Amino acid sequence: MSREAKKLGRGVAVVGAGMSKFGSFADKTSRDLFVEAFQAMAKSVDKGIETKDIEALYVGNFSSDLFENQGHIAPIMADWIGLVPKPATRVEAACASGGLALRTAFIAVASGLFDIVVASGVEKMSNLPTEKVTDTLAAASDALYEAVCGFTFPGLYAAIATAYMAKYGATPEDFMRVGIKNHKNGALNPKAQFNKSIKDLMNSRIEKAKQKGEPTPTWHDELEFLKDPAANPVVAWPMRLFDCSPITDGAACLLLVAEDLAKDFSNAPLHIIGSGHATDHALPEREDMTTISAARVAAKQAYDMAGVTPKDIQIAEVHDCFTIAELVAIEDLGFFKPGGAYMATREGVTARDGAKPINTSGGLKSKGHPVGASGIGQVVESWAQMRGEAGPRQVPGKDIRLALTHNVGATGGTCVVHIFERR
Amino acid sequence: MSREAKKLGRGVAVVGAGMSKFGSFADKTSRDLFVEAFQAMAKSVDKGIETKDIEALYVGNFSSDLFENQGHIAPIMADWIGLVPKPATRVEAACASGGLALRTAFIAVASGLFDIVVASGVEKMSNLPTEKVTDTLAAASDALYEAVCGFTFPGLYAAIATAYMAKYGATPEDFMRVGIKNHKNGALNPKAQFNKSIKDLMNSRIEKAKQKGEPTPTWHDELEFLKDPAANPVVAWPMRLFDCSPITDGAACLLLVAEDLAKDFSNAPLHIIGSGHATDHALPEREDMTTISAARVAAKQAYDMAGVTPKDIQIAEVHDCFTIAELVAIEDLGFFKPGGAYMATREGVTARDGAKPINTSGGLKSKGHPVGASGIGQVVESWAQMRGEAGPRQVPGKDIRLALTHNVGATGGTCVVHIFERR
Repeated sequence: MSREAKKLGRGVAVVGAGMSKFGSFADKTSRDLFVEAFQAMAKSVDKGIETKDIEALYVGNFSSDLFENQGHIAPIMADWIGLVPKPATRVEAACASGGLALRTAFIAVASGLFDIVVASGVEKMSNLPTEKVTDTLAAASDALYEAVCGFTFPGLYAAIATAYMAKYGATPEDFMRVGIKNHKNGALNPKAQFNKSIKDLMNSRIEKAKQKGEPTPTWHDELEFLKDPAANPVVAWPMRLFDCSPITDGAACLLLVAEDLAKDFSNAPLHIIGSGHATDHALPEREDMTTISAARVAAKQAYDMAGVTPKDIQIAEVHDCFTIAELVAIEDLGFFKPGGAYMATREGVTARDGAKPINTSGGLKSKGHPVGASGIGQVVESWAQMRGEAGPRQVPGKDIRLALTHNVGATGGTCVVHIFERR
Repeated sequence: MSREAKKLGRGVAVVGAGMSKFGSFADKTSRDLFVEAFQAMAKSVDKGIETKDIEALYVGNFSSDLFENQGHIAPIMADWIGLVPKPATRVEAACASGGLALRTAFIAVASGLFDIVVASGVEKMSNLPTEKVTDTLAAASDALYEAVCGFTFPGLYAAIATAYMAKYGATPEDFMRVGIKNHKNGALNPKAQFNKSIKDLMNSRIEKAKQKGEPTPTWHDELEFLKDPAANPVVAWPMRLFDCSPITDGAACLLLVAEDLAKDFSNAPLHIIGSGHATDHALPEREDMTTISAARVAAKQAYDMAGVTPKDIQIAEVHDCFTIAELVAIEDLGFFKPGGAYMATREGVTARDGAKPINTSGGLKSKGHPVGASGIGQVVESWAQMRGEAGPRQVPGKDIRLALTHNVGATGGTCVVHIFERR
């Protein structure tokens, strides 16, 4: 077992999980969304939680500085949920801020300093116009090695996508299939930003054309719809609009407690049995663009700590900021061999009713991607699925006891992986 | 003992400490300064440290987002010191980011996950023009409750200063005395941004006037100099230029190890025996502006954990972002009774050769205040003083075995306190 992966002093469990609606909310600040998520989390605790018993807050946030001109948000969030003077810590790792907040909170409870803490994430992105959001997100890339070349994130992931196509023979349709699957899942998630399937979106476009008396589009299925530039314009080839996660406002909260207290709070706690975190160089310095090394290292740490293998994982929420990112993720996590993810996706293995359901929540693509909150939102889905509370999107025919979350910052400068067990 | 203050699983020690020169460096990025600090830290480790043995990095940074348009800096700093793929975590708490990075690293080592980590801080502020820096720093205040009223930090601390004067009878000269003392200390610190005493500055102004054949100023001492608006203009009454910490670029690094490894690295390690962290509401919501509640709560946690009292502390580096802040700090820390700090300062108690030396480094006022690095820089001074390595500014006649650092975010939304022991 690697040094990084050695066992901590004591176990930690998730005993509550909740999120705000994800979407675009012109009338809300990040603090409003945070309170909404905190209340949803509190409601999810089987035996209840009183705010006074919470000892510390960890907040993942990419850049309220740039989005809302508000730094130092941890004490503000603490104040708005009534935690002052309890300690509050903001953690930032671009789009992996949420996952890293979870890990930092997990370590804090494992240390023995705290028994009961909130791990959370929040981002309010929609204040800025779209092009400004893209610029703002580009601050998460390396200013001297990536952004300076004119790259923004659609371009960076397009570079990864073309490398993947060249190496493995995948096609743009393979990326589209990821989006189709995730929107199908998101259509069943009432908190998702886009809770419509691509088929629904296609049919509503056809319907609208008919109503307006315009020529009726001749799309026969979702792939045809997505291949039509009028319906799905290219953003950075081969990434089109429906390959990109949206601009999202949202927050999510988890309640973490020392393992020996878990049953005082929950009838079905999730034990955090694996946690991994790694870094990587900027994209131009990497040997291979079709894999994210930080994901492989973080996954190994998490598997080693948990004592499980990729085969054992029943469901996973992975970081599909772009559709290509999901394919790379599920290879990096060892679910599929390098270059094997797109065929598995074609065959439906990663569908909700497949052998390895991926992103049953709808993923970042359909659920939405409030960057600092996404890593926590992934755990909210794991919570629902593992407790059998996912309603119409509950994975059929599986008693889910092992789930994984995978949260990436930027092009993989950071990756954080967690493994959860319901005992 | 309070729940927050209970002892952790295992002890943690500082076995290396170093900082870059603090100042204004047009030709350097934050990564350059970070490497400089890391190398200084590595050099300070008595028995040496190899980069490959470092398991994780914690970086305190307020807002490279706003200052350099660069988010997600932790993996970048990790890359520049050769740590990739090791995990790197950025922590943000405005001007307390450094102190909070130290605390987060301390908890991580105490948890048993890591044995050897770097706790660090960095900020590159001088890229922006002064008025833009003031605006940028205002993002650390509460956008809805403080900044919205037109407050920037000089104004916020001026409000605290006037409240303090009204309640306790202090005068603007009492604030000036803090600056005179700290500049006197900073004059002996080769890494300080302003390593000149106020007397030096005064004499050099007189000398220049003479050389130019201009009328010679008639200042007889530093107080007269500081009371002259031509020499020391009002920024926000009663805070004048020399009551404000400067705009600074800088970085600082510490090497933290599990206590049982300390002697493998150091002949004279500093044991972290106390750590406290608390939050507070925005300034307009507080009952009393002359005290920072978060500092009192964090200090109590740290004292309780350490099992020591304010009397036991031999030296302290406190957060003098403005001169008034030092007076409030040393009362909040229990060194002096409420309203007692300014008289103690008049009497020289807080001078380097006084009974309770405060800010022997020069403090943020003279050493400089690269906001995210300041909390780590404070520990670099404690390291030097406790090991008898502070050279001409070594506190005379004391064998220093207990030191404290006090790091404040914004107007006290966050406060972090640490206590160090040399055994």
